[in-house]
Amino acid sequence: MNALVAVYRLHAPAADVRERAEAIALEQTVELPRAAVTDPFVEREILGRVRDVRPEPGGTHLAEIAYPLACFGDDPLLLLGVLFGNTSLQPDVELVDLELPAGAARVFGGPRHGIAGIRELAGVRDRALTAAALKPMGLSPEALADFAATFARAGIDLVKDDQGLVDQETCRFEARVRAVTRALDRVADETGRRPVYTPYLAGSPRELPARIELLARLGIRAVMVSPMLAGVGLLADLAREGRLVILAHPSWGGAGRVAPELLLGRLFRLLGADASIFPHAGGRFAWREETCRAIADRLREPWHGLAPALPVPAGGMTLDRIPELLRFYGRDVMLLVGGSLYLAEDRLEERARAFVRAVTEASEEVSP
Amino acid sequence: MNALVAVYRLHAPAADVRERAEAIALEQTVELPRAAVTDPFVEREILGRVRDVRPEPGGTHLAEIAYPLACFGDDPLLLLGVLFGNTSLQPDVELVDLELPAGAARVFGGPRHGIAGIRELAGVRDRALTAAALKPMGLSPEALADFAATFARAGIDLVKDDQGLVDQETCRFEARVRAVTRALDRVADETGRRPVYTPYLAGSPRELPARIELLARLGIRAVMVSPMLAGVGLLADLAREGRLVILAHPSWGGAGRVAPELLLGRLFRLLGADASIFPHAGGRFAWREETCRAIADRLREPWHGLAPALPVPAGGMTLDRIPELLRFYGRDVMLLVGGSLYLAEDRLEERARAFVRAVTEASEEVSP
Repeated sequence: MNALVAVYRLHAPAADVRERAEAIALEQTVELPRAAVTDPFVEREILGRVRDVRPEPGGTHLAEIAYPLACFGDDPLLLLGVLFGNTSLQPDVELVDLELPAGAARVFGGPRHGIAGIRELAGVRDRALTAAALKPMGLSPEALADFAATFARAGIDLVKDDQGLVDQETCRFEARVRAVTRALDRVADETGRRPVYTPYLAGSPRELPARIELLARLGIRAVMVSPMLAGVGLLADLAREGRLVILAHPSWGGAGRVAPELLLGRLFRLLGADASIFPHAGGRFAWREETCRAIADRLREPWHGLAPALPVPAGGMTLDRIPELLRFYGRDVMLLVGGSLYLAEDRLEERARAFVRAVTEASEEVSP
Repeated sequence: MNALVAVYRLHAPAADVRERAEAIALEQTVELPRAAVTDPFVEREILGRVRDVRPEPGGTHLAEIAYPLACFGDDPLLLLGVLFGNTSLQPDVELVDLELPAGAARVFGGPRHGIAGIRELAGVRDRALTAAALKPMGLSPEALADFAATFARAGIDLVKDDQGLVDQETCRFEARVRAVTRALDRVADETGRRPVYTPYLAGSPRELPARIELLARLGIRAVMVSPMLAGVGLLADLAREGRLVILAHPSWGGAGRVAPELLLGRLFRLLGADASIFPHAGGRFAWREETCRAIADRLREPWHGLAPALPVPAGGMTLDRIPELLRFYGRDVMLLVGGSLYLAEDRLEERARAFVRAVTEASEEVSP
């Protein structure tokens, strides 16, 4: 197979689905009526081809369309554009899956650090990992740095910025990452332990280079990015550069008609996310367990030799759910607990310690 | 009002909608339980507030939530993040509208050229404008430049790259923009007329600066961008720099749960798009006329003194629909006809001339 195969769900009458699928194959590649495609190279190496259209229970159909690799080459924007660019505007079509040849997967490269790299960076061999977020927006760099120090003393493995923190007047990017770094240095001097600080890296193409350079100067090794807001090119750039561990954030990722396991699982992994955050069922988000299972599978399953990426379920997890979460995901997971820690107010360190302890204990109950 | 007000449609039981709205107000700002928000500045200047929840016909509800301006300042990623970041992951919530104070609108600035600037650049005073696309991907720079020359001789006002053209092996960005520029120079020498060439500017933060510099060196004055793939920061950067006329492309913009008139109309205009492409009803896309009307309204209506942006209906328009389209949109519109021109094959110039003539004639039939 020398093509990418995308799978779409069609909400259309059975009599129309073949024609709808043919229309998608044209739309996503040449954007021309079939009769206007006359160049032999374009016909052979560019034109999308319908491979299969089959009914599903419930009356929808699945259409498989093959796109030649020349359509997108090594370009992440073209990859997403070919998969769903204009067709995202069709209310009756969902993008549900993709498969591509191993060679094309290697072109994008997948996670450069992956689960093993995150474990090494965090110094955690085989238990599940813990993460906490610095929030809310509106606090000063120093206030957030105090939270970071508290989480560090409690033994949290990874401390990330909230996605509400970019470069506001109340909390400039540079001031924040410097303050948090200093605070974590101080705790490391006391305790010998240092969580992986993961700033939120966002911004426009003009703003990003200085922020990325600052991270390098401070020796910061991990970042969180929102590919659907900052652009998928940022994710791919950072992965190709290879220095930083990348935690993908799902902001604007619930496109409604893209399967979450495809976008947050397969596509973010393909483009280089080392870990991917998503809401776990039963928290603040009405997601089903099977969706979460599918995301975790797409992130971790063997796939063309790409490194596995770490699932980071989040979205309203509480400490009492940790044993259940570990049974569900196993140990190769990072649990991100946010709000329920902050409810502890001046007992934040104690609550964070309880979180770390619960994850450590529950890890022993589940197979590696 | 010193806040942005966003309007969400809630698909939830009436008994739950107030609580759902309160949850969105927290999610989109502090991402914390209400009880964990204790800092007075955060309570006053950051926390989202539910202003109204009202039933709609059909059983859904509209919730208005006010977000203090300090949440996003002048940052386009934060603006979109606060509007719909995590809540995009909620299957029962749609983002349908926003309003913000004039001061905040001026911070983002809207179109820097707008309809007037595009008319000046194209040298077209009061009729509707015409646009054609260079396609398909897979053709060489020279083949696409030949199409550009043909469209130029036919008198088309704006010639844009297809969104399938970025920087593939078959057609490198630099080779393409140079070849098209040369071809248009030659036609301008012959005829004295030159369409506005509008390359597709896409890429990762690492790739973009060289591409933008090349455009400046070649004296290119307009670009097309896909904000939902390249990142909304690129749109805002280019608008703030102010040199280029910006045509927004809706790729991945059909997020399913964001109202098209909000994203492609109001938000893209706010961030600086001078023109916005969207599918007109009755073409290849199953969009309703009222959606197209709303997009055109959001682009052109008076709004905080921001320049009006040009609607660019597209998506399978044919020449026989031009009078109907002009009656629908009036003269402040750019008609983008793609595939139906290319079907003419070796009579492409003739067909493009017929397109220009039809738009000129139909423009006279409608009031300015």
